[in-house]
Amino acid sequence: MTSIGILGAGGRMGQAIAAETGAAGALVAGGIDRDGPLTGPYESITDLAGGSDVLVDFSSPSALQANLNAAVAAGTPIVIGTTGLGAEHHAAIDVAAGSVAVLQAANTSLGVNLLTHLVEEAARRLGTDWDIEVLEMHHRHKLDAPSGTALLLGEAAARGRGGAKSVTERMGVLAAREEGTIGYASLRGGSVAGDHQVILAAEGERIEIGHRAETRAIFARGAVKAALWLASKPAGRYSMADVLGL
Amino acid sequence: MTSIGILGAGGRMGQAIAAETGAAGALVAGGIDRDGPLTGPYESITDLAGGSDVLVDFSSPSALQANLNAAVAAGTPIVIGTTGLGAEHHAAIDVAAGSVAVLQAANTSLGVNLLTHLVEEAARRLGTDWDIEVLEMHHRHKLDAPSGTALLLGEAAARGRGGAKSVTERMGVLAAREEGTIGYASLRGGSVAGDHQVILAAEGERIEIGHRAETRAIFARGAVKAALWLASKPAGRYSMADVLGL
Amino acid sequence: MTSIGILGAGGRMGQAIAAETGAAGALVAGGIDRDGPLTGPYESITDLAGGSDVLVDFSSPSALQANLNAAVAAGTPIVIGTTGLGAEHHAAIDVAAGSVAVLQAANTSLGVNLLTHLVEEAARRLGTDWDIEVLEMHHRHKLDAPSGTALLLGEAAARGRGGAKSVTERMGVLAAREEGTIGYASLRGGSVAGDHQVILAAEGERIEIGHRAETRAIFARGAVKAALWLASKPAGRYSMADVLGL
Amino acid sequence: MTSIGILGAGGRMGQAIAAETGAAGALVAGGIDRDGPLTGPYESITDLAGGSDVLVDFSSPSALQANLNAAVAAGTPIVIGTTGLGAEHHAAIDVAAGSVAVLQAANTSLGVNLLTHLVEEAARRLGTDWDIEVLEMHHRHKLDAPSGTALLLGEAAARGRGGAKSVTERMGVLAAREEGTIGYASLRGGSVAGDHQVILAAEGERIEIGHRAETRAIFARGAVKAALWLASKPAGRYSMADVLGL
Repeated sequence: MTSIGILGAGGRMGQAIAAETGAAGALVAGGIDRDGPLTGPYESITDLAGGSDVLVDFSSPSALQANLNAAVAAGTPIVIGTTGLGAEHHAAIDVAAGSVAVLQAANTSLGVNLLTHLVEEAARRLGTDWDIEVLEMHHRHKLDAPSGTALLLGEAAARGRGGAKSVTERMGVLAAREEGTIGYASLRGGSVAGDHQVILAAEGERIEIGHRAETRAIFARGAVKAALWLASKPAGRYSMADVLGL
Repeated sequence: MTSIGILGAGGRMGQAIAAETGAAGALVAGGIDRDGPLTGPYESITDLAGGSDVLVDFSSPSALQANLNAAVAAGTPIVIGTTGLGAEHHAAIDVAAGSVAVLQAANTSLGVNLLTHLVEEAARRLGTDWDIEVLEMHHRHKLDAPSGTALLLGEAAARGRGGAKSVTERMGVLAAREEGTIGYASLRGGSVAGDHQVILAAEGERIEIGHRAETRAIFARGAVKAALWLASKPAGRYSMADVLGL
Repeated sequence: MTSIGILGAGGRMGQAIAAETGAAGALVAGGIDRDGPLTGPYESITDLAGGSDVLVDFSSPSALQANLNAAVAAGTPIVIGTTGLGAEHHAAIDVAAGSVAVLQAANTSLGVNLLTHLVEEAARRLGTDWDIEVLEMHHRHKLDAPSGTALLLGEAAARGRGGAKSVTERMGVLAAREEGTIGYASLRGGSVAGDHQVILAAEGERIEIGHRAETRAIFARGAVKAALWLASKPAGRYSMADVLGL
Repeated sequence: MTSIGILGAGGRMGQAIAAETGAAGALVAGGIDRDGPLTGPYESITDLAGGSDVLVDFSSPSALQANLNAAVAAGTPIVIGTTGLGAEHHAAIDVAAGSVAVLQAANTSLGVNLLTHLVEEAARRLGTDWDIEVLEMHHRHKLDAPSGTALLLGEAAARGRGGAKSVTERMGVLAAREEGTIGYASLRGGSVAGDHQVILAAEGERIEIGHRAETRAIFARGAVKAALWLASKPAGRYSMADVLGL
């Protein structure tokens, strides 16, 4: 039975992952949070990494480096689901992926990962006279904007199009839309688990490609699925597309 | 300069096609409607077919056979944009396509044709635990339901999935949804040019892929584009995917 | 502490109500389902009614009469959340309301009840050149269509407008929309807890008023709130508007 | 026959107003733009004001003061449809309204004006545990963000709630949503005439109240309707609610 160590175990996602681990026929090795051990016999991240077959990290960007260090020290594969990562975090992941298997995913649901595939395809087929906008809505407690998944979708669109400039600031700027850019907008409120929509708009018509998560359980389910898949993999950087065969 | 003969010239689409023909650098040879000649020197459908490089038909299913006969008699390619066609109409089109170039399209917009491609792809990647529903809204004057485009999208989904049963009657029937079916729903109101959405729903998440037409002009533009493309083609049955290179 | 007896205790809503009862500081007296007692010491509906301060019924239309009889016999107020009720069920509720407090609600969420208020107001202000359509989506297991809440919204619109004919069958009928009617459309798929939208469409513009339930817990929460409110009320027929002060 | 002078006559809205004026049985006195007279015999704004029964201004915020001066000098009522106005512009309008009838409207459609009424009502009935977000999408040429109509809807929500802080900058700011605020998001693309949606989101449920304009013609129609209504009114500041009797 594969044992999973949970980093950020006290957060909403951490708790959901603990719940889904049992449902998937796996074992929670233990859980650690900002303030220390939450469940299981391990006193530190390094201890937990040593006692787990695979780690799942939904803590915070500021904890990422320490979590990667523990994974590398113990030779334990790690799934990174934390969002709000910057270039420095991705660089740190690349370094760690030289020693252990690391799967980083801004979104672990099957639906969202198929969506990125459809968005890339649509952007590839349509000319730059089709404007691309990415809209997302999340619950009131979410800290970062735009969401990691929105950025993922925007990157897929930019890939399809062969490159595009991102525009996140539009308020109060008196200017027409610049052709070929990708715009982002974020809504926050209630308990929305995560809605995303990519809008491709041309003269007289629009295509809208979207995803609605009804519950965070789908992300936890996907993260556990990714962890079980990653547990036996050699060093390298992986993505959800690898897990889902997309 | 290519000359276009318009069948159903007095309807909303017929008028829009006349307007777009000039914009596309082509010529209206003449227009005929249920009640006879509308514009141009031609007294009958056969006359009009003889005097046109290509015909565009947005009349009605009941007029289809006579329109195909005229196209075949004159050896003139014909674009069929009429919706509400049954199996007998498609059989008649196949026969005519043995003698002249015939392009039949339930929807002539670039966006919708890309959408069918995306829907087929999504249905292919997802299992039958993802339920598929097709929703459309059109203006209050539309006669047929579901729309020809909704059926087109449903067929694309069924193709992706390797076959599926259509469900159009749900009201008043006390029954849970049958797995693997494709459901249809139609809204009518105002002056909506045509909105379509395919919903793929699984446990805890949904993918929504949709298209909004802001004006019928996009269909007229696409039909004229198809006509100019078809004017020089040999006998055979064609689709918008051929025109658009999808 | 108020004790609640649950009819239809084994269904999704019955279980959700049991979960919310504790959270609201009340007590589950017991639960009964089609197949007999589920929880608590009571062997029959009449026993359960006698041992409860208030009943909550989310069973099925066919069980309604027996449930009302038990409530009347024991003099116990009853909340009816079952959907798919016909005229005969409403007549039976009216009779029972002569003896005990009965609150019938097609939907027990605060949001939906505010929505019906907004829909009635919009329909009152707009002329019959604004077409009204009601759209709903629910999970694949739902048996009735359109949903009870869709009918509730349609009735609110008809009230605002001073009467309107309902149209539920549109598929395969070759006819333009009849002015002044209210159309219904139903989608089924996945695990959707309940989405509703009323569309008012005129020449060139549309108003869309909708509600999304992310989880059935909101209906259970509202039903428990209604039960606690109803427990001390005299005989009569009540609605969620009474509970919520709308 | 009432004669209308158009300020900003060369813009999209100016041209649409000229088209709708005839349809409404009124007369275009003349039109002036940034670069001078466009139609009619008038050489300056003051000339045009003197020769018109009423002015309609869809030019730009920077032209507002000169337009108001001309209206006041000639004693001619004026409809202001320009968006992107600041506090200084509203102050100037208040001053002019001391001498002539001035109707300022961020949006002149019937649907949007009803929407603001519904939004205020919804915000009044719901507590501050319902988060309010305002979303809008407009064509790629629109200069200001958020749209004037989005601000109008946000102000209606704030009124209903008894005051609320606006939040327009969320991108890159690491912070949870502040309770009681109203958030704005803007999308730009294609030829979208104007879509607006107010989302009220609580724990487990959402209410969405929106409007879709299919064509700018509805704003022109509403502006002409407002002009004909205003032509005979005494000095004072008016709104679309006055015209529409909301």
